[in-house]
Amino acid sequence: MHYETLEARFSKINDLNHALAMLQWDDAAVMPSGGGVARAEAVATLNGLIHDQLSTPEVAELIQATADEPLDAWQRANVLEMKRSFDTAMAVPVDLVTAYSKATSICEQTWRRLRAANDFKGVLSLLSEVVNLTRRRAQCLAEAKGLGHYDALLDTYEPGLRQTDVDPLFSSLSDFLPECIDSILARQQPVIPIDGPFTERRQANLGRLMMARLGFDFDHGRLDVSHHPFCGGVPDDTRITTRYNESNFLESLFGVLHETGHALYEQGLPSTWRNQPVGSSGGMALHESQSLFMEMQVCRSPAFIAFAAPHIRDAFGGDNESEKWSVDNLLRHVRKVGRGFIRVDADEATYPLHVILRYELEKALVAGDLDSADVPDAWDEKMRSHLGLSTTGNDADGCMQDVHWFSGAIGYFPTYTLGALAAAQLFQSATESIDDLPDSIALGEFGALVGWLRREVHSQGRLLATGPLIEKITGRPLGTEAFRVHLQDRYLD
Amino acid sequence: MHYETLEARFSKINDLNHALAMLQWDDAAVMPSGGGVARAEAVATLNGLIHDQLSTPEVAELIQATADEPLDAWQRANVLEMKRSFDTAMAVPVDLVTAYSKATSICEQTWRRLRAANDFKGVLSLLSEVVNLTRRRAQCLAEAKGLGHYDALLDTYEPGLRQTDVDPLFSSLSDFLPECIDSILARQQPVIPIDGPFTERRQANLGRLMMARLGFDFDHGRLDVSHHPFCGGVPDDTRITTRYNESNFLESLFGVLHETGHALYEQGLPSTWRNQPVGSSGGMALHESQSLFMEMQVCRSPAFIAFAAPHIRDAFGGDNESEKWSVDNLLRHVRKVGRGFIRVDADEATYPLHVILRYELEKALVAGDLDSADVPDAWDEKMRSHLGLSTTGNDADGCMQDVHWFSGAIGYFPTYTLGALAAAQLFQSATESIDDLPDSIALGEFGALVGWLRREVHSQGRLLATGPLIEKITGRPLGTEAFRVHLQDRYLD
Repeated sequence: MHYETLEARFSKINDLNHALAMLQWDDAAVMPSGGGVARAEAVATLNGLIHDQLSTPEVAELIQATADEPLDAWQRANVLEMKRSFDTAMAVPVDLVTAYSKATSICEQTWRRLRAANDFKGVLSLLSEVVNLTRRRAQCLAEAKGLGHYDALLDTYEPGLRQTDVDPLFSSLSDFLPECIDSILARQQPVIPIDGPFTERRQANLGRLMMARLGFDFDHGRLDVSHHPFCGGVPDDTRITTRYNESNFLESLFGVLHETGHALYEQGLPSTWRNQPVGSSGGMALHESQSLFMEMQVCRSPAFIAFAAPHIRDAFGGDNESEKWSVDNLLRHVRKVGRGFIRVDADEATYPLHVILRYELEKALVAGDLDSADVPDAWDEKMRSHLGLSTTGNDADGCMQDVHWFSGAIGYFPTYTLGALAAAQLFQSATESIDDLPDSIALGEFGALVGWLRREVHSQGRLLATGPLIEKITGRPLGTEAFRVHLQDRYLD
Repeated sequence: MHYETLEARFSKINDLNHALAMLQWDDAAVMPSGGGVARAEAVATLNGLIHDQLSTPEVAELIQATADEPLDAWQRANVLEMKRSFDTAMAVPVDLVTAYSKATSICEQTWRRLRAANDFKGVLSLLSEVVNLTRRRAQCLAEAKGLGHYDALLDTYEPGLRQTDVDPLFSSLSDFLPECIDSILARQQPVIPIDGPFTERRQANLGRLMMARLGFDFDHGRLDVSHHPFCGGVPDDTRITTRYNESNFLESLFGVLHETGHALYEQGLPSTWRNQPVGSSGGMALHESQSLFMEMQVCRSPAFIAFAAPHIRDAFGGDNESEKWSVDNLLRHVRKVGRGFIRVDADEATYPLHVILRYELEKALVAGDLDSADVPDAWDEKMRSHLGLSTTGNDADGCMQDVHWFSGAIGYFPTYTLGALAAAQLFQSATESIDDLPDSIALGEFGALVGWLRREVHSQGRLLATGPLIEKITGRPLGTEAFRVHLQDRYLD
């Protein structure tokens, strides 16, 4: 069968993607800075080879030929994913693929160094190059797919997602969030500070303990340290990272819980489809729904904090009797809401405003309405209008805070907030489906919950796109209602 | 020029080798065991792709076409190296390349687990498979190159090296070593034990300090932990590993000094030829000469121990006044000679006997005169005849002690001893060329010494083969005389 020939070729491409994923983990977690130039070359060559493996007439012919073959639903979905990869590869010339790969590698490496120095000017020419190459890429993809330029980029991160899907969701959020945040702030109770220092080793031990309790398989994964936390690697070897702040263990702990949500998804992908496109994780909105399901919906709940509090006290020698280490105070800490400058430190209520800010700016960047040099000023202006915060004059905590644009991930940000909406909607369904869910969570029993995720989401691979999958599981299209109700329940009732 | 087209292609192959090198480091240093199967597949695919990039008629035609082009000596040597790679690739069918890659990956991963369990039977079928595939590989290479089977394997590790080169050297060593060892043992002075525990952290700090003093560039490399210490990575990002024994810091320290010798070679390769075959390190005998030059010739000298002793005492809180921590006692420790079971723990006098044992067995394995199942018995017999040691009945410390055969490295062992001979011969030349070398070493000043190595060896890449290079630097062909004199001077005068 032609189908089998296709599977063999995509298995090979999967192996090259394995190499890329590991090199990217290595780059972020362990590579000495002097290795960066050679690494950027190697990654570009691998990207070029993947492109070569995909963009041959033979692949088109094979895909065509499978039309008459008796395939089951998974195989058919697999061919659809192959076709998507093929179309994307054919749309972009290989020279642009390798130029983009090299430019983004070098720009990201430089950003890592210059963010610490608050030096936007130093990285500007590299960022401009990345933005220009992204525009060219967007143009190629847009022409081939018959989409707008920004839509063509969105589509690479979340297949099928369009601005026309994003806009009404973001507009609904913009409508109710500002008032909702004001109400939360008005009734928020003060926290008792929990002072450090909390050593890296103790934080790492606590993180590993929680990962294991949630179901992370350490025989198929690791926890390490990187500048910008992420979940990488491959399903059989899923690598998550965090960074430690010795004066605040909650930052790293909830970072780890977040990445564990991503990792459980990767580790739970269908093993029979391991090396095929249909067996890989869905779009980034769905991926983010899995991390936020864990971090926001599960782990910031009273039930989870009741379970975790003794472990947290154990880890840091906290006093059982002290109000500081009480479930109540911990809960107030992990539910603190406030308008701040940093997206990754933001609470779930203000987070969407950070994303909307970036969404508006990156659309303008792609359209050519915003020049890279003007990003710092535009950033400050949006920070004022969306979050009511005046500039810090500090680009490190402004437009340089995120790796995304510097690494070429333009069109990615909206998936964070779509993920948050999906997480709320999925958690509502899980709560309806699983008996006594909060009680199990309070006992540290996550088997039923993770089992539900495995069955409904993880094991589905790319059989369905994110939209239809969410609708199938929750009975309705992705919307803002579950998220609104969640905020109301958690913070205002 | 056709030459430039060739350079572009080999630069691409270099990038794929970069990926392979990093995946191999990752496998040995950080990969969780459950990632092994997917990794083996990915590595096999990369090996297959490198093979595909090499073994095309186009490469042959390009090489042919360069004959008329005006090339300088480096370019000409580069083409020769390209041709060697091409010939090797053409000789072995791609199916065998990927089968061999997969079999060796899986066998090595299994060996790592089963060595700890002393379970030779458990890994036997995988080892047989590796040996069989190695025989087939040897046959293909032998036919293409007009060599004997074992010579064809030797040639892959040290280009140009033949059994007829090895035999007289090994026979000379077999002649004088047994008596030499007896004499050393007869006059060896007892050591005062230095008891631990020595924490990993303190050992690692000391190792890093010594690496830095010798000239290791941490902006272009790392030190990590692995089961079997090695030097890997790429010249711009050279990764060495060690393992820590909390009751004996000298094992890890001298392991690190050894690997630092390898790493200085990699980091010192000619930067203008970074991504071309001629810019890579020479054969494994030359590579080993660089590690043994540092470990044996430099670092086990009285001058080096005089420099290192205060740092060692500092690292572990050793008492300045105590005889235990004195230069004399440390020197006796690092020059202890004894017939033991473990090659990597062996001193420089008995080490060649370990290699000769393996050389004889692996020749028999390749010739089909020895079956994999009979390796444990044959090992014990050779251990008796060469080292006078009766069996331990413990394969973990017998035929399972080395990763080499399990990872497919058959034909590699002789390069260790050739490296030891070359190190002695090169150090003799260095001592003649550099004024007051021992005094500089005692002061911890390695600039002149490393500068000499950089100039004479490291910066030469593959411009010359190992034999001619050694002869050019030392004024005579590689022999056993400098090594014999070195042992005489160090242990018997």
